[in-house]
Order: sequence, then C-alpha cells, then structure tokens
Amino acid sequence: MHIQTLTIVGVGLIGGSIGAAARQRGLAGRVVGVGRQRDSLERALRLGTIDAWSLDLTEAARASDFFVFCTPVDLIARQVMAAAAVCRPGAVLTDAGSTKGAIVTEIGQRLPPGVAYVGSHPLAGSEKRGPEHARADLFQDRVTVVTKAPWTDPQALEQTTGFWRTLGARVRVMDPWEHDRALALTSHLPHLLAAALAGVLPPELYELTATGFRDTTRVAAGDPTLWTAILEQNRSAILEALDRVGARLGQFEGALRAGDAATVSALLAQGKRGRDALGS
Amino acid sequence: MHIQTLTIVGVGLIGGSIGAAARQRGLAGRVVGVGRQRDSLERALRLGTIDAWSLDLTEAARASDFFVFCTPVDLIARQVMAAAAVCRPGAVLTDAGSTKGAIVTEIGQRLPPGVAYVGSHPLAGSEKRGPEHARADLFQDRVTVVTKAPWTDPQALEQTTGFWRTLGARVRVMDPWEHDRALALTSHLPHLLAAALAGVLPPELYELTATGFRDTTRVAAGDPTLWTAILEQNRSAILEALDRVGARLGQFEGALRAGDAATVSALLAQGKRGRDALGS
Repeated sequence: MHIQTLTIVGVGLIGGSIGAAARQRGLAGRVVGVGRQRDSLERALRLGTIDAWSLDLTEAARASDFFVFCTPVDLIARQVMAAAAVCRPGAVLTDAGSTKGAIVTEIGQRLPPGVAYVGSHPLAGSEKRGPEHARADLFQDRVTVVTKAPWTDPQALEQTTGFWRTLGARVRVMDPWEHDRALALTSHLPHLLAAALAGVLPPELYELTATGFRDTTRVAAGDPTLWTAILEQNRSAILEALDRVGARLGQFEGALRAGDAATVSALLAQGKRGRDALGS
Repeated sequence: MHIQTLTIVGVGLIGGSIGAAARQRGLAGRVVGVGRQRDSLERALRLGTIDAWSLDLTEAARASDFFVFCTPVDLIARQVMAAAAVCRPGAVLTDAGSTKGAIVTEIGQRLPPGVAYVGSHPLAGSEKRGPEHARADLFQDRVTVVTKAPWTDPQALEQTTGFWRTLGARVRVMDPWEHDRALALTSHLPHLLAAALAGVLPPELYELTATGFRDTTRVAAGDPTLWTAILEQNRSAILEALDRVGARLGQFEGALRAGDAATVSALLAQGKRGRDALGS
C-alpha cells in the first residue's frame, strides 16, 4: 500500500504518532498536518511528525488521497463530510475517534460517489496531549478497531486495515455499535470511575495517596471536554456498563455489611483473575 | 537512633524493603527475619535484605529490641502480643499493616510493663509480593503514618517515628481511626473499584483493553486473602467511602441520562483537578 498524500487532521498525541509512524515506514509520499493552531502544527513539523501543514482543511483535502481525522469525536463527522465534498475520487477517509456508532451513523451513506469513509479506533494513547508525546511505535502490536457497517465499501475497508497494519497495529474488524458496547466497559466506564474517585477525594487527603490511588485515577487527568463528547456519544452503552459495575459494587457492599468474608474474597478473586489475565 | 537487633516478621515486599533499607543505612546491628516459610526467608537472606532468619517468633523475640510486623492485618495483633510476652523490657513493637484502628484496639493496653506497641503504615508497596521485589529506597520520600492512640507511650512513639525517618520516610502522626477513614478513601475504595471493574469484564473483551483499563485496575491483582482481611477490619469507613463514590456515580448517571453535558463536564473537570493535584 502506498499513499501519495496522507492528511492528518489534528496532530496531537495520536495524529502526531500516525505521522511519525507513516514517515518512518515510508507509507506516504507526503504527510500533511491540518489543524487550527499554527503553533501546534509548527511544533509537529519541527518534531518530524509531518512534512507540511495547513490551517485550511478544504485546501488540504483537494490534494489528498488518504485522511485520518484525530479530532474530538463530536467534530469528526462534520469534518469528514467537509473534506469528502472536495477531495479526489478514490480518496479514503478514516478517523481515530473513541466512539464509532454515532460518527458512522451521522456520515452514513451521504458521501459523494467515489469517496469512502471507514471508522477506526486505535486502542492506544494516554491522558497526555500534544505532538510532543507522539511516538512512531505507539500503534506497534496494539489493537486498532476498524469498523464495518452494512454500507461500508469493501475496498476502502481493506485499504484502511492495510493502513493500520503498516503502522504496526493488530487490526480487528468490528461492527461500530459492538465496538461502542465493548469500549463502554473497557475504556469509558474506567474513565467515569477514575473521575468519580479523583473527584470525591478531599484535598486534605492528597498526601495520603500512594501508587494505588494514582494508578486507579490516572485516566481522570484526560481532557474533560473531549471526554464529555465521548460519554455523550456512547451514553446508552455507558449507562449499561455503569449498571453492571454498580451491581458488582452492590454485591461487595452487601457482603461487607453481612460480614460475609467468603463472598468478599470470592469477588476479589474474580477481579484478580480478570486483572491477571491482562498482564502488566 | 540505633537498634541492636531489629526483627522483621514477614519478609515480603514491605518487610524485605525495611530490612534492605535498615542494613543500607546502618540502622541496626543485626536484622533478623521471621517467617513461616524457610524458602522465602532463605531468598531474603540471599538477597541481602536480612542478616539471619528464624522460623520461631518467640525465640527471635527474646533477642530483639525493635520489631516490625509485616504480616496480614488479621494476624498482627496476635503476633504482637506473643512477641511482647517474651521480649526484653524497653522493646518497641510496630507494624506495617494497612488498617490501624482494629489492631491498635485489640492490643490496647494489654502489653507487659516496659514493652510498647505503636501502629505504623508505610504508604508504599504494590500489588507485587515476595522479597524479590524489595527495594532499599521503597520508603524514600513516601509518607509513613505512625498512629497515636490516647494510651500510646510518647517515647515509643518518638522511637517509631525516628525509625521510619531513618528509612527515608516522611512521617505523619495520626489518630488510628482517622487513618482508617482516610485510607478507606485513598486505598481501600480504589481497590474495591478496581476489583469490581476487573471482575465484570467478560473475557472476550480482554483484547480490547488498553493502558487506561490496565492502570485503573492494576491494584486488583493484589492478594484476595490479604485484602479481604483489610476490607473486613475497616468495614464501616469503607462502606461510607463507597456511599460517597456511589453518590458521585449517581450524579454522572443522572447527568448522562438527562443529556446534561455541562454537568458531565463539570464532574469530569473536578476529577481532573483532583488527579492533576497528585502529580504523575
């Protein structure tokens, strides 16, 4: 697979890492970063994650044959439509958003003929932001979900999976709503729990936290605006996930109140089995 | 401060680190490890965390002037009483247990004259176990809580705070029940949340977890038996902490159901402020 001009919209941690990986692997003739902040684009350029930049998506879109949108989930669909309206026939557009159902549905089958969108979500990143944290190996051996809706173009799906594989990712093709139900449990719910825990800790107890509290709440440092949009877009699956963990916390509470050490221990053992299965 | 014979009961991660730090800093003439497993004591000896070992607490106790019990919280009070019954006058006994109220209460004022117990809790450690994970710098610049009950001997309190300071710790003297209420929020509740989250994740979703899920659930890998005893001993404070985070999760749920993005964002921002205040 070879791309002439790869356009990355949003060159923070994820977009910058895509640029760095694509350049390192010779995936594209040219990598163009698009954003709204000249300063951030200049830094991405100096860091070597892109070859050129533009503040104008429409202008950049005219010259590109592959796009990745690494912008907040509530902006992606609109930006995809804007780029699709002006880009070359045969162009493929994908994204790196943490939700898929809402984006895939909003874009739907409304693209011009010959232009295709395929949803993606690389399961990589961190609570950190900005091109300074970009790493060419960010996707190496990590899962990237690529979504297949009933109307997804098979050739564009293949090009998108090829794109992520070239960046080192293990690709898993999934239904977009199945993705959202899964990520509600594996990513969005942990964020809620971390935010709740970090949010109820009184400042006078900060000095009595150790690595356990810090690990458990690390993701709560993520950007509230980005996460509000994610939680909003995946609301129903997240409410279900919250019910599930709430029921489990209710079991813990009941067993603790009853002094039922056997049940407490069994619940902890089940958590340990789950965690141990994930490795360190 | 100089100790002739320091006895460490339980030479895993915490006990081994105490031994390693004490030897490195010349805090004691001799460091004796006591345990039930010859194999584990031999490993601690080979790793240089202790000078000698014994399987017999009573025998070791006769020759010691300072003790640290690094055993499960439900064993500490009994072991302290057993050692206190035979140890030298002037001996000081402390521990490294994650709960303090129940232990301090059980020991109470029942020690022989001239022998003193002071509760301690170094806020260090991890989900890992065993002397292999011991580190001489484990307590460096970390908080160790030393507890002061109404009947705590002032001189023994001073010796105990001196002991931990010599190992590099920042000591905070607290009431034992205040310690338990604080740690319910900063340590025991995070453990419950991590165990609940890791316990409800279906195995087919394991491959869709990334660093966020792994960080949030890391502590759930801790030993269920040790943690059952901790949760049991600090039950009422933990139930209160669980109520507090449950109320916060209820606020998230209500705001999500109502599509109230401003409230979701405000709750996330509060979590971020709390987490950011703790550093990385």
